[in-house]
Amino acid sequence: MSMNNLGIVRRNIVRADRAAVEKLARFGVATVHEAMGRVGLMKTYMRPIYGGARVCGPAVTVLLQPGDNWMLHVAAEQLQDGDVVVAACTTDNDDGFFGDLLATSFRARGAKGLVIDGGVRDVKDLTAMEFPVFSRAVGARGTVKATLGSVNIAVVCAGAVVNPGDVVIADDDGVVVVPAAVAQQAADAAEAREANEADKRRRLAGGELGLDMYNMREPLAEAGLRYID
Amino acid sequence: MSMNNLGIVRRNIVRADRAAVEKLARFGVATVHEAMGRVGLMKTYMRPIYGGARVCGPAVTVLLQPGDNWMLHVAAEQLQDGDVVVAACTTDNDDGFFGDLLATSFRARGAKGLVIDGGVRDVKDLTAMEFPVFSRAVGARGTVKATLGSVNIAVVCAGAVVNPGDVVIADDDGVVVVPAAVAQQAADAAEAREANEADKRRRLAGGELGLDMYNMREPLAEAGLRYID
Amino acid sequence: MSMNNLGIVRRNIVRADRAAVEKLARFGVATVHEAMGRVGLMKTYMRPIYGGARVCGPAVTVLLQPGDNWMLHVAAEQLQDGDVVVAACTTDNDDGFFGDLLATSFRARGAKGLVIDGGVRDVKDLTAMEFPVFSRAVGARGTVKATLGSVNIAVVCAGAVVNPGDVVIADDDGVVVVPAAVAQQAADAAEAREANEADKRRRLAGGELGLDMYNMREPLAEAGLRYID
Amino acid sequence: MSMNNLGIVRRNIVRADRAAVEKLARFGVATVHEAMGRVGLMKTYMRPIYGGARVCGPAVTVLLQPGDNWMLHVAAEQLQDGDVVVAACTTDNDDGFFGDLLATSFRARGAKGLVIDGGVRDVKDLTAMEFPVFSRAVGARGTVKATLGSVNIAVVCAGAVVNPGDVVIADDDGVVVVPAAVAQQAADAAEAREANEADKRRRLAGGELGLDMYNMREPLAEAGLRYID
Amino acid sequence: MSMNNLGIVRRNIVRADRAAVEKLARFGVATVHEAMGRVGLMKTYMRPIYGGARVCGPAVTVLLQPGDNWMLHVAAEQLQDGDVVVAACTTDNDDGFFGDLLATSFRARGAKGLVIDGGVRDVKDLTAMEFPVFSRAVGARGTVKATLGSVNIAVVCAGAVVNPGDVVIADDDGVVVVPAAVAQQAADAAEAREANEADKRRRLAGGELGLDMYNMREPLAEAGLRYID
Amino acid sequence: MSMNNLGIVRRNIVRADRAAVEKLARFGVATVHEAMGRVGLMKTYMRPIYGGARVCGPAVTVLLQPGDNWMLHVAAEQLQDGDVVVAACTTDNDDGFFGDLLATSFRARGAKGLVIDGGVRDVKDLTAMEFPVFSRAVGARGTVKATLGSVNIAVVCAGAVVNPGDVVIADDDGVVVVPAAVAQQAADAAEAREANEADKRRRLAGGELGLDMYNMREPLAEAGLRYID
Repeated sequence: MSMNNLGIVRRNIVRADRAAVEKLARFGVATVHEAMGRVGLMKTYMRPIYGGARVCGPAVTVLLQPGDNWMLHVAAEQLQDGDVVVAACTTDNDDGFFGDLLATSFRARGAKGLVIDGGVRDVKDLTAMEFPVFSRAVGARGTVKATLGSVNIAVVCAGAVVNPGDVVIADDDGVVVVPAAVAQQAADAAEAREANEADKRRRLAGGELGLDMYNMREPLAEAGLRYID
Repeated sequence: MSMNNLGIVRRNIVRADRAAVEKLARFGVATVHEAMGRVGLMKTYMRPIYGGARVCGPAVTVLLQPGDNWMLHVAAEQLQDGDVVVAACTTDNDDGFFGDLLATSFRARGAKGLVIDGGVRDVKDLTAMEFPVFSRAVGARGTVKATLGSVNIAVVCAGAVVNPGDVVIADDDGVVVVPAAVAQQAADAAEAREANEADKRRRLAGGELGLDMYNMREPLAEAGLRYID
Repeated sequence: MSMNNLGIVRRNIVRADRAAVEKLARFGVATVHEAMGRVGLMKTYMRPIYGGARVCGPAVTVLLQPGDNWMLHVAAEQLQDGDVVVAACTTDNDDGFFGDLLATSFRARGAKGLVIDGGVRDVKDLTAMEFPVFSRAVGARGTVKATLGSVNIAVVCAGAVVNPGDVVIADDDGVVVVPAAVAQQAADAAEAREANEADKRRRLAGGELGLDMYNMREPLAEAGLRYID
Repeated sequence: MSMNNLGIVRRNIVRADRAAVEKLARFGVATVHEAMGRVGLMKTYMRPIYGGARVCGPAVTVLLQPGDNWMLHVAAEQLQDGDVVVAACTTDNDDGFFGDLLATSFRARGAKGLVIDGGVRDVKDLTAMEFPVFSRAVGARGTVKATLGSVNIAVVCAGAVVNPGDVVIADDDGVVVVPAAVAQQAADAAEAREANEADKRRRLAGGELGLDMYNMREPLAEAGLRYID
Repeated sequence: MSMNNLGIVRRNIVRADRAAVEKLARFGVATVHEAMGRVGLMKTYMRPIYGGARVCGPAVTVLLQPGDNWMLHVAAEQLQDGDVVVAACTTDNDDGFFGDLLATSFRARGAKGLVIDGGVRDVKDLTAMEFPVFSRAVGARGTVKATLGSVNIAVVCAGAVVNPGDVVIADDDGVVVVPAAVAQQAADAAEAREANEADKRRRLAGGELGLDMYNMREPLAEAGLRYID
Repeated sequence: MSMNNLGIVRRNIVRADRAAVEKLARFGVATVHEAMGRVGLMKTYMRPIYGGARVCGPAVTVLLQPGDNWMLHVAAEQLQDGDVVVAACTTDNDDGFFGDLLATSFRARGAKGLVIDGGVRDVKDLTAMEFPVFSRAVGARGTVKATLGSVNIAVVCAGAVVNPGDVVIADDDGVVVVPAAVAQQAADAAEAREANEADKRRRLAGGELGLDMYNMREPLAEAGLRYID
């Protein structure tokens, strides 16, 4: 058994069920995260490079070395239609690992977007291409191609574990990871939650208070809340 | 006398004079802050969730516990038309305390916006609603309803003291707090300052130097400034 | 010989060749930085105040003291048509050193934009003016005029050395500094690189892999990359 | 009524009761904070300049301008025996506002220590003097004496409101503020809490579980905790 | 299959082989990390609460909610002699989850130390106890016992995946995680590396250059390094 | 003319005058920085790895690539007795570029210490060796030897320009750079300042106020300071 997973490309991965991915694509990150019981979020420093960016798909994972984007080129060959590339780095690094050339290549090979715990550049071009990217930074500094990382191993990206094939959903609110094995279950739960929300929204818009709608008055009183004038 | 103000909701607060609030609403954060003598600003990490967001109104204050948005529901009941909710937290926390459901409720009860030293989510929906929110972070992580904070006590939000009823003004430049007792005075001073600025702007646009307009040459020379070729 | 350069204004500086500046203005920050061999970038915390902001020109440099914008007024007099003001500060400081009045003055004197390792304010007005500003922060806090810095000395701005007359290029990807002496060389190299990129983009868009286009397969194998199923 | 409190020195302040201060000095920051109901702490970035530093006393407050320590000299004259200087700054600033000369002066005038939301220097000398300082940073950069702040006004220091005369307690765990009016009450509560802790410590050391000692098993089961093998 | 692992306590975990743990305890974090091929490190913000703190043992893992240390009490019951508690949190939080009472309990139940991606307090007492703790912060703020997390599930702590039973080694250089399945292999590799280092140290101390000892001159020349006078 | 200085080792550098270096070694960082007129400091994030660490000597400069310490081995050959290695990095990076083996080599070649805008490891060993290191972080992550930087070029280290041969002085207060050409002048000015400080310290210890000693009362009154009771 190897002590680490560096220098490896896994070619055959099990992607989450396509129908489940398509269903999950209809819901926002906050909804999916809540539907799963409040798990799976990446850290809040992950931000879209343009407002309204949004992506959902099975993950092709990449582990990068700092200042080195060699593995993104390796990953391009492993892409299938609808994939989202999820790139972690062995250390915190804001260099510009990704730009419009790689985006062109990724798109040509079927990728729908990128989630990267590192920097990206050419954001004006990427925005014009409407290629959704979620990153920890915008950084123009170029990278070399000298040290091996891996493709399609389990990675920790911005604090979340991502296995190849897991569903990654990203929008203005952040990024959430849905393990492949529970993708359908999460999609169903998200649907249920959203239906439920529509009704709540209507009642709240009518002036009903959450205090009453969620029956909070009694537990608040029990917790000792006091009203004073 | 109690050692702390946790678990309290103050129902009757003295809001700043309505006319003063309306007048303050005409000025930007930088202008008001200068007019007051350079005080009252929150820390610069407080940012609008969409460009051009802007709000001005008397504060209904909230003290939250980390990962817990119970008190926001309690606060909803205390809102009056035109209020701005100002939410502090007992500790630094980027969780998503607030989203579109609470925004719907707050708006239905009269609130004009939110200033929160914590995270918010559903920013796409909030933007579509044009509900102005100024926050320390965007965070999708959901919160629980388990621990008491307070409503309408004095809070420290992003480094600034806010008393219930104080005027809070927020725009692209940040957030400023105007104590209720000096709201009219601050509005008048802001008006005077802005009038003054229009003239300065015209002169500077014509090529006049601040060096001359502000009579800086003599104090600069006294301070020892040397020109070399 | 003086131990420091404080309290000095250099009136005659050698600006980079105008034709080279104009040529450099056609290229993005990432391209220029790569063309120079991956040097000259400022830190990634420097961000435009509005999306799409872009500027290129010879630098008039300023060294500020914290909370004090006196030297920006001094700098205004030294501006020539096409200049970009580059302002460093003796210490990290997010105060609002610059706003729409100074922008009006700078523009009237010929400046095309500002790069400042400090805070700026009036961003709504600056955006309406389409005056490009790249800064470490947006900060509404006003500044005083009490302590001397300098104008047109060598400064370190956001981690990069800038000499007066150097070309500064800024866009959505960040800020890069091109020493005046190599401006033409950098412009030519950027042009060559961009021509080269157009061809690469076309091939990648057609589905060719970077692995093949850049001949990476052999060095990857030599480095020990293993493909597994 | 003035819109701000800049340029003011209040000479007569009401210090917390001396006996209460002396009693509070026996307890740690964590104990006092808990005894007050979990309020009054400064942000966690406030750290002692040497391990084991500890101070307790009524606050003489100072509001500083960035890069300017003028008001610390003004504050020295207002010190009485046993005081702790609490210095806030109008903006985040790591400059070295305080060093061994000021410490010598403060000690000669009766001060027992310093809590400062800014930088300090000469930490080797301050450590040799055993002069306790809690600060946001160590910064060697010197400051000027050009812009007015205030002495003995209410300040927000590292996120906590401090009024002149309030008791400030600082140790390796951080800094807590006790309003003067509740100093005796807080001291009594801290004493009660500490007595209680000694017994708990003994039981836990004997192997008893907090689960049993605090009767947590039932609420955990009610909350849904499941044990699996 | 459950979508999340919240509200679970796993009682039976497979701890790494005791002999392997004992052997690993002889080596430093940097050595073990290198021996594994440069993997397994937590982020650099994890620091010991006192210089020279050091711990090695199988992990009992905990997932905490922000501002809530309930699960640490639950974890105490699952401890065996020699264990190290590894506590992650669902969100970034510097509150003081752990102090001397819990340390007393943990030690009484066999724990050798704590690694926590959160705050701790009572650091003076913990230091006096020589109870090694590695944390993201020192924070005096107390926590509640209201929301469920889990014990002995896989967690991401400071960027590293930790499974219950994995070996965790922490010293002044940081924290490294060794999966239980490769503990013996890692220990052997660390031993080999350290033997190797002793010889290198002797040669370098004698003035031999790494350039020669590691045969770097040829690859440096090939990479294009130029010496100039 | 080359557009960058990568891949270069300058063998012959002009070190600051030895007598000036020896004289500077008697003074603290804060004193030297003040004596030069408040310039030359690195950012405050540069901290000693152990309390009391202190070093002064001419700089051998190094420019590193992220995650790559090749150039430190190249630099070892360029060291002369008394040198201090000053290592910058092309991007922010906390990896462990330096440990006890390199320290052994550096010391054997005459180096007195290291100032590095990156991470270091083996801090226990470095402390035992009493090898002074000032760094941005402690990081155990090992580095590769794959990409060229340079030795003995001008670098920006933690915000300060350092030319090879400049004097670098570091202690508990931070790091200051003295250009070689003004080393003697700075040493003399530091001596004068320190003599001056001894007298001030004596007077302040006797209770004299800075207000009087520095004649501040009149300028404070002119600035508008008001005393109230």
